Amino acid sequence: MVKGYAGRILHVDLTSGKLEVENPSEAFYRQYMGGSAMGMYYALRHIPAGADPLGPENVLILTLGPATGLPISGNSRVTATARSPLTGAIGDAQAGGFWPAECKNAGFDAIVVKGRAAKPVYLWLHDGEAELRDASHLWGLVTGEAQAKIREELAEPKAEVLQIGPAGENGVRFSCIINMCNRANGRTGMGAVMGAKRLKAVVVRGHQRPEAADPEALRALARWGLDNLERRVGSLGKYGTAKTVGNQQADGGLPSYNWTSGVMEGYDKITGQTMYDTILRERDTCFGCAVRCKRVVEVKDGPFQVDPLYGGPEYETLATFGSYCGVSDLAAISKANELCNKYGMDTISCGATVAWTMECFEKGLITAADTDGLVLNFGNAEAMVKLTEKIAKREGFGKLLGEGSARAAAQLGRGTEACVVACKKQEYPAHMPRVKRTLALIYAVNPFGADHMSHEHDPSYEEDGYEAYLAQLDLKDPQPTRSLNAEKVRFALHTQWMYSCLDSVNVCDFVWGPGWQLYSSNHLVELVRAATGWDVSLYELVKLGERRLNMMRAFNAREGMSRHDDVPPERIFAPLKGGPSDGFKVDRDELARAFDTYYGMAGWDASSGNPPRVKLEELGIAWVADLLGL
Amino acid sequence: MVKGYAGRILHVDLTSGKLEVENPSEAFYRQYMGGSAMGMYYALRHIPAGADPLGPENVLILTLGPATGLPISGNSRVTATARSPLTGAIGDAQAGGFWPAECKNAGFDAIVVKGRAAKPVYLWLHDGEAELRDASHLWGLVTGEAQAKIREELAEPKAEVLQIGPAGENGVRFSCIINMCNRANGRTGMGAVMGAKRLKAVVVRGHQRPEAADPEALRALARWGLDNLERRVGSLGKYGTAKTVGNQQADGGLPSYNWTSGVMEGYDKITGQTMYDTILRERDTCFGCAVRCKRVVEVKDGPFQVDPLYGGPEYETLATFGSYCGVSDLAAISKANELCNKYGMDTISCGATVAWTMECFEKGLITAADTDGLVLNFGNAEAMVKLTEKIAKREGFGKLLGEGSARAAAQLGRGTEACVVACKKQEYPAHMPRVKRTLALIYAVNPFGADHMSHEHDPSYEEDGYEAYLAQLDLKDPQPTRSLNAEKVRFALHTQWMYSCLDSVNVCDFVWGPGWQLYSSNHLVELVRAATGWDVSLYELVKLGERRLNMMRAFNAREGMSRHDDVPPERIFAPLKGGPSDGFKVDRDELARAFDTYYGMAGWDASSGNPPRVKLEELGIAWVADLLGL
Repeated sequence: MVKGYAGRILHVDLTSGKLEVENPSEAFYRQYMGGSAMGMYYALRHIPAGADPLGPENVLILTLGPATGLPISGNSRVTATARSPLTGAIGDAQAGGFWPAECKNAGFDAIVVKGRAAKPVYLWLHDGEAELRDASHLWGLVTGEAQAKIREELAEPKAEVLQIGPAGENGVRFSCIINMCNRANGRTGMGAVMGAKRLKAVVVRGHQRPEAADPEALRALARWGLDNLERRVGSLGKYGTAKTVGNQQADGGLPSYNWTSGVMEGYDKITGQTMYDTILRERDTCFGCAVRCKRVVEVKDGPFQVDPLYGGPEYETLATFGSYCGVSDLAAISKANELCNKYGMDTISCGATVAWTMECFEKGLITAADTDGLVLNFGNAEAMVKLTEKIAKREGFGKLLGEGSARAAAQLGRGTEACVVACKKQEYPAHMPRVKRTLALIYAVNPFGADHMSHEHDPSYEEDGYEAYLAQLDLKDPQPTRSLNAEKVRFALHTQWMYSCLDSVNVCDFVWGPGWQLYSSNHLVELVRAATGWDVSLYELVKLGERRLNMMRAFNAREGMSRHDDVPPERIFAPLKGGPSDGFKVDRDELARAFDTYYGMAGWDASSGNPPRVKLEELGIAWVADLLGL
Repeated sequence: MVKGYAGRILHVDLTSGKLEVENPSEAFYRQYMGGSAMGMYYALRHIPAGADPLGPENVLILTLGPATGLPISGNSRVTATARSPLTGAIGDAQAGGFWPAECKNAGFDAIVVKGRAAKPVYLWLHDGEAELRDASHLWGLVTGEAQAKIREELAEPKAEVLQIGPAGENGVRFSCIINMCNRANGRTGMGAVMGAKRLKAVVVRGHQRPEAADPEALRALARWGLDNLERRVGSLGKYGTAKTVGNQQADGGLPSYNWTSGVMEGYDKITGQTMYDTILRERDTCFGCAVRCKRVVEVKDGPFQVDPLYGGPEYETLATFGSYCGVSDLAAISKANELCNKYGMDTISCGATVAWTMECFEKGLITAADTDGLVLNFGNAEAMVKLTEKIAKREGFGKLLGEGSARAAAQLGRGTEACVVACKKQEYPAHMPRVKRTLALIYAVNPFGADHMSHEHDPSYEEDGYEAYLAQLDLKDPQPTRSLNAEKVRFALHTQWMYSCLDSVNVCDFVWGPGWQLYSSNHLVELVRAATGWDVSLYELVKLGERRLNMMRAFNAREGMSRHDDVPPERIFAPLKGGPSDGFKVDRDELARAFDTYYGMAGWDASSGNPPRVKLEELGIAWVADLLGL
């Protein structure tokens, strides 16, 4: 058995109820490592071409990594992989929490779920054992209630529960998977896939703690992290990702009023500092992590009372329910966040869909007659919260919005399509292509739709060590920020490989990474070495990242997708209004050239934008080319 | 100043006699590191398109590396770069010895030589000072004599002399650069370039020892090398590269009788063991190296007396003057080796050219009327030695042979062309494509002609650690050996990048490398870190190797070369005769597919086989694309 791993992968067929345990070879673990790359291995092999994302033929894969559960910051992550009901492309989402570490303790590195249960079930994994249990009584419960019930009935108060809420049961296309009631595999609608399978939860508890191959090296690396925590990620720990609100506003990069401006009036009411000074109850952590970036907020009075069980809003949530919607009411945003975690919805797509509705409402394209009477002007916090709940329950107008903004607009017509800000039908996260130009490219080419954690954004940092970290990837600080030349495309692609690697080693992108994170790329090499005992190199890890990205692209190619699906929303070509980014827009010709450069650098076919056989062979995965008939 | 380096690069214009010292930036050192990549930087910038390799417009660049002169095995290497008079393509050759370390001590990381001196000169570098001195009195001297005279006139018995012999002065197209009278920058005719510039020697002496950034890490790495020396490279130390003779014969991979067979009768008389038991006088070393693979032989009696000053034959020399020629007389081969080192000729191209003559002679395509009466049957040791001397002096038939076998055959005609075994007019070194198939590909695509130190050959090794070393480059043991499928092409290309990196960090390929060497790829990362203090990664180093390879290919593209110049000799498609490889031949269709796969994997244009702009941009060298007008 390879150190760091549990050595066991669970295969579940919900249709037959059969459970099987696979003990993969060391070569398999080394080539696919964990997380998203490992997920893609099973997705490509087990999901048939043309599978309905919400049909039994889709396969949901939950994966950990070699360091999951080891005592070091940023270790405890779970990746969910399946064909996405939101994008129709491959779906991919990561979450932290205690669930991943506990799943490793329970004796499993991954769970591959096929088929559809006849009635709701949940999986119970404990110390190497796995069983399917009835979940009929849990169906329809919000996450907090379901978690409490499960712990109670198993008499395992420390069991960790990864589950869907009612939104996933109801097929909201951007529903997510939730653990601890406040950690989300947020994007690409993985909750709907789980719901369609009638799998309410995966519950884990165990005592088989993973062992590092080199505990002393691991301790030294962990110690380095503690010694450098304040210097490198002190403000992230103190203010959480919410610290970003102020920075973005200062740069004119806070997406506001459904992406028509880069600044929001009243932004200061929703900053990380404001949260810290007002409603923050505590700083929460994932297993073994010293950063403690997670927020727990509590609001006891007023119209928007917020239960601390459901955590607190991240930067993305503050933006999507806040600035996207022109809402500067921190309690209202926190309430929307609570609802998303209760019902199991992606706060990004949900908030963005509400913002899209608001712009359409302001323009008269959608009226109160559509919205069950809700008056959805920008800034209407109450309506925003109400609409969020309607979406989760797929009530009234919420039914349509549960399809996501792109599908809703396509159904509605009336010119509402022009207000959609999404790629591959997935709503834009809260970093602005008109301010950081590589985002225009990466949002579009990313195989699982617009995503902000798939490459290193292109502002330069003044932080000590930023350039030294980048140099490990043969990169320089990508100055200046307002261009999208070949050097910037190179920066985006190389860091995309690295983020792809992070999601395949399955570590937290806020703790490990190529630029501003606590640990550098070379530290990641040390981590994998310490965990597994393999003498891995950064070359190998970057190749792992490139391999995973190509596997995703190949998956999409099999579904008939190509560069013609890598289309940015029109919105980014229109000038922003107000603030330091006033007038900023993406140059259409420059972006067109950047696409060509990107596919060329990636070794992808110029006309299809897909990996040719020779690129898959170069990555050691000729079997993927065989699968595609290349 | 970056630790490890001297921080100074000398620019010499021989036409004007002007000397200038450049102090490059840290960014330059990190991006081009040293050796061949640094050489290519200057070659591309300073050699004009269409430059006559033997004209003043060619530029000869001698480069060291970040670890040159540091106390660890395999550190002391010098690379010579210029347009090659043998191939017309970029030229590139490495040598070891004490000269490289001493050059660093003298205060220089590289020497860039332009123009042509009015009369012979030599360069004298000492403790940061550089001067050009008259060498009229040295012109025409063999290396041993010139070295002695220079040391005497400088009163510097410890000065190290890198020089050309009479062959380089006479424009022998495969003449080499020699240091210590027995270390050669052997291939691609760099000696002729130096001769055409009327630069007899570069003499160095200094006391500015380079400092490692992390001496303790360097010591630990050196200690690891000593502890593992016997296990990993013990037989290389004991028997030198000559140990290879027996292994090749056993595999049917000893190129014999001008590549018509893979076995030679009497091979046992020229093995490393036989040399060890008979004429070996001592094991020599390069600066700081514990391997001690270099041979010193002495023959005092008989027809072939050999002076130990000139070292002893490597495996390549034992093959080219031995098995290629059907000669199993160790003293005769050692004599030919001595002559090559005295006169300054590449033993590979020289021996191979003699072997070509012998086959032509046996077939009656060349007769004694051509050869000044020499009877050149296979196995005629005396004629072989005589012809070698005639080539060096360009006497009689030797004048034609000094052009190399490809040009000689083109001039002679008569069907002699079919007996040439070369790529890009450079004669095949002594590893057989019909036995190790990746060689058929790499000999052909290599930018500086057929070369055996440009990738990892494809037999599998049983040695402990081989697979673990390969895994660092995301590679597996490339079994089976008799095929050239995509996996083998991948193996060849990825290891070609690594060897390209080794020649750019400028370390010995027998001590550092991806497979069977003492130190692994990851150790090389540790070396560069310890030397420079940069937190480099293997990713960065492999990219360095890929960058250098692409720069070379770009240089050739500017000269109008393309994949149409990547042509293997017909000989490899004919079956071998006798021994374990009887009947082996390269499959033409399989090789054709391998070329396509190779260019595709390299990111090169399918029709030209040259790097497109986007690949150069991906490697961070858009300026090379600009230079080529891409």
